[in-house]
Amino acid sequence: MDGLMMEFPLTIPVMLRRAETLFFDHEIVSRLPDRSLHRYTYADMASRTRQLAAVLRELGVQRGDRVATLCWNHYQHLEAYFAIPLIGAVLHTLNLRLSADDITYTINHAKDRIVIVDESLLPLFETIRQRVHVEHVIVIGTAASVPQGMLDYEQALANVTPNVCDDIELDEREAAVLCYTSGTTGRPKGVVYSHRAIVLHSLVTGLACTMGPTERDTVLVMVPMFHANAWGFPYTCTFVGAKQVMPGSFLDTASIAELLTDERVTQCSAVPTVWLNLLQYMDRNPGVCDLSHMRTLGTGGQAMPVEAIRRFNEDFGIQLTTGWGMTETGPFSTQGSLVEESVATDGAMQTSYLITCGRSLPLTELRLREDDVLVAWDGESVGELEVRGSTVASAYYRDATSSEKFTADGWLRTGDIASIDPHGQVDIRDRAKDAIKSGGEWISSIALENALMAHPAVSEAAVIAAQHPTWLERPIAVVALKDGASVTEQELLDMLAPDYAKWWLPEAIIFIPEIPKTSTGKFLKAGLREQYGSILLDRN
Amino acid sequence: MDGLMMEFPLTIPVMLRRAETLFFDHEIVSRLPDRSLHRYTYADMASRTRQLAAVLRELGVQRGDRVATLCWNHYQHLEAYFAIPLIGAVLHTLNLRLSADDITYTINHAKDRIVIVDESLLPLFETIRQRVHVEHVIVIGTAASVPQGMLDYEQALANVTPNVCDDIELDEREAAVLCYTSGTTGRPKGVVYSHRAIVLHSLVTGLACTMGPTERDTVLVMVPMFHANAWGFPYTCTFVGAKQVMPGSFLDTASIAELLTDERVTQCSAVPTVWLNLLQYMDRNPGVCDLSHMRTLGTGGQAMPVEAIRRFNEDFGIQLTTGWGMTETGPFSTQGSLVEESVATDGAMQTSYLITCGRSLPLTELRLREDDVLVAWDGESVGELEVRGSTVASAYYRDATSSEKFTADGWLRTGDIASIDPHGQVDIRDRAKDAIKSGGEWISSIALENALMAHPAVSEAAVIAAQHPTWLERPIAVVALKDGASVTEQELLDMLAPDYAKWWLPEAIIFIPEIPKTSTGKFLKAGLREQYGSILLDRN
Repeated sequence: MDGLMMEFPLTIPVMLRRAETLFFDHEIVSRLPDRSLHRYTYADMASRTRQLAAVLRELGVQRGDRVATLCWNHYQHLEAYFAIPLIGAVLHTLNLRLSADDITYTINHAKDRIVIVDESLLPLFETIRQRVHVEHVIVIGTAASVPQGMLDYEQALANVTPNVCDDIELDEREAAVLCYTSGTTGRPKGVVYSHRAIVLHSLVTGLACTMGPTERDTVLVMVPMFHANAWGFPYTCTFVGAKQVMPGSFLDTASIAELLTDERVTQCSAVPTVWLNLLQYMDRNPGVCDLSHMRTLGTGGQAMPVEAIRRFNEDFGIQLTTGWGMTETGPFSTQGSLVEESVATDGAMQTSYLITCGRSLPLTELRLREDDVLVAWDGESVGELEVRGSTVASAYYRDATSSEKFTADGWLRTGDIASIDPHGQVDIRDRAKDAIKSGGEWISSIALENALMAHPAVSEAAVIAAQHPTWLERPIAVVALKDGASVTEQELLDMLAPDYAKWWLPEAIIFIPEIPKTSTGKFLKAGLREQYGSILLDRN
Repeated sequence: MDGLMMEFPLTIPVMLRRAETLFFDHEIVSRLPDRSLHRYTYADMASRTRQLAAVLRELGVQRGDRVATLCWNHYQHLEAYFAIPLIGAVLHTLNLRLSADDITYTINHAKDRIVIVDESLLPLFETIRQRVHVEHVIVIGTAASVPQGMLDYEQALANVTPNVCDDIELDEREAAVLCYTSGTTGRPKGVVYSHRAIVLHSLVTGLACTMGPTERDTVLVMVPMFHANAWGFPYTCTFVGAKQVMPGSFLDTASIAELLTDERVTQCSAVPTVWLNLLQYMDRNPGVCDLSHMRTLGTGGQAMPVEAIRRFNEDFGIQLTTGWGMTETGPFSTQGSLVEESVATDGAMQTSYLITCGRSLPLTELRLREDDVLVAWDGESVGELEVRGSTVASAYYRDATSSEKFTADGWLRTGDIASIDPHGQVDIRDRAKDAIKSGGEWISSIALENALMAHPAVSEAAVIAAQHPTWLERPIAVVALKDGASVTEQELLDMLAPDYAKWWLPEAIIFIPEIPKTSTGKFLKAGLREQYGSILLDRN
């Protein structure tokens, strides 16, 4: 027996219509290339989005065609986020932090017909232009700057006839967005989000029990829009009518601090590095950054040092919330928050909740597995985290090796090693490939990194596995110090000693000026292993 | 081109699994027939739900079969809410406030195979038993009381083999719940909610921009579970892990005040009468009811008098939020909240926002129509409210006359007369059938009722259309006074005069001890019209 409910597909046009109808006078603020701020409303955004959709149609874009963007976070990129799916085409956000070779690969693999590119990124695009087969290049910039053979974004919007584009009927399972993973190993792989997945992700991340932005919030969209849909914020915020602030290409801490203060930002999520830099900046420039409007500060992508969580909490009254996810998972799969069990407890206990990645979001299910056996949720046992749900990829785009990443019963193998406590709190211990197994026992690199980064002299710390003749692997730490600070290897080991078993302590600590990072700001542990992975062998 | 996302249907078992896995130790509190409180956890609830599902399977319930409940709000009813859809059967909640004749009709129309009935409601059920064709009756009560030929609920759960029931694969479009409308005119009509509609409704009402209960909330489920799924709260609260408090059959104000206080309730929604009674109760018994934990008080089903909104706000610091919906719409279609535009304004302005029903929820779209023309959203023009969305009925169950309620392009005609302001704030002016049209012009009965109920002597006021030889219709007011209070017709008219055009003023005011109400607590205006609708003709 079927329900008797209306067919009302979960599609991106539904989200746009809502913003256009109810939140037409709410603002979107963008930092322009000349550092000035551009302001307009959802009414402007929606009408220009419909113009862009009409432009793309006139250029011959058909349902299912891929249209790429090579852009920073700004209002035109937001227009592309909606305009491309609006006509049933697929938005492909090019990750400008990939190598030119990988960007070339993703454009050709996706068979993008059109690329929309920021004027400031034209030099990058020019290096690959001869190697890709796109029919049109649309440049966002000043008309004078548009090279021969390319289209000017603003001119195209002004000239298009008809100059708006009405909604067409879309199936919620149609492709809306194509994001390639950062590809720390091998070529980038494409994840194809459906309209349905994006709407459901927006609903789930709008819940009061998660980040839950509302029309009364101002959200700084800090995560690059070329990385996992900026963690979904441009879609979620539009759906609920939150004011959006887009930093453009100015991601330095001073510029961010200025936006947080001047725009009275109430919510912002970013990788830990952003918040660590902000803490240091505020220490150096007291009173310059006003966080008094901040309601929720989110982080993810990497473990946040406990010390920083404590400082935000105690010095600024802001509870950091940690999420976990991957491009393959929507991206949010978990979200931390102070749960009932922890509210009544003291600060230390609360912090211990906040350092986990929280619990699975609605419509996402998790399990742990090691060697084909499910691992208990006891907060101690570790296994590979597996995930399934409404916003999780079932395969990679045009990739025959897809199946390796999925279990026989259809769960995604995340490659993360985690424990889960009885209340479902997920604690990511390591990337599977970053895990250290010394004499057959796990050592958590993240736990040691957190402990090292709590030292006032330490700016960054990465703990990796080094090969060892007896134990096969032993941990070593690679540490970068703050400007002008100093500490010795022995002092750091003495600090760690009371809190860890002797065999957990790093076999060596190597000081370098800065930890190398991946395109998304994570420690590049593969590179560190390559460079330092055999020092214990050489030593012995 | 299709998305490459997992198939993960939106079904009720997904919601149950989440509560069972993450919120196993959160509480559900129920008032028992002997007035004592029963407490257990979501772990208990889930395992008993799976037992009940197994019982129903052993009794031969097949996918798509209807299983009815005739119950108050308590934990066993919650078990039925999940157990019946868990095996693909359809929960039919019998509205015990309908006439015995209508209950009989709905059981036979739905072809219910099993009825689960509260011991306290057996006398009601016995009056119709001979007229309905059900195979099994399961009684919730004490074993000794179960009549011959009926099953004892607790005994059945204890005896069942296998005693749990695993999830089966369900299609999200399958029927989950069948609710009949109250049917103020004609026979009740059946609305069939799909699994998908219930999950989406739970997500939407869990958003931070709506009521948004979380795992940290305690929700008193005040709306009867036999009425429009108790406005969805049992499902939403289970999904997000909120503590639920169920009042059983004790709906008197003293019992409710006790639960609100003792269980530290943070959210509760109910029809206005409940809150008006509570205000009077608190005035008579100062200090007895502690609302200091209350975060959100919701209302709907009828307009809330402004005076009461103001008093909750000013005397108790509680912002009332008004929703609007129908059994046919999920039920919530709109939800009020202080929007950005109103936060900065003064108390009076805030109140003017709070008396509207708010804006459409995500996945719901609204429009106004009069005489086949769409009506502008200017806050003044009125028309019939039409609605479409993911949680809106497309037809009634086995009803050939269904199509009258839907427009040619697939919107539901609500029968409510409303205006919508430019920001989308919906103001319900009247039920279409309650509207007063005097000399061709609308007069809002709700506005006049609100104004009359602001008088300290007035307890309830209903304004209806009376036939008039010249104007065709003229408003008259039927008023009930508070115990011991007194006011004259002229005094009330003098109070209204400064705020309304002369032709809006009631032609007569009739004092009666209490306004008669429908089964869901709304003023029974049809009855009042029948009784008083011709008094102006008689007079002239």
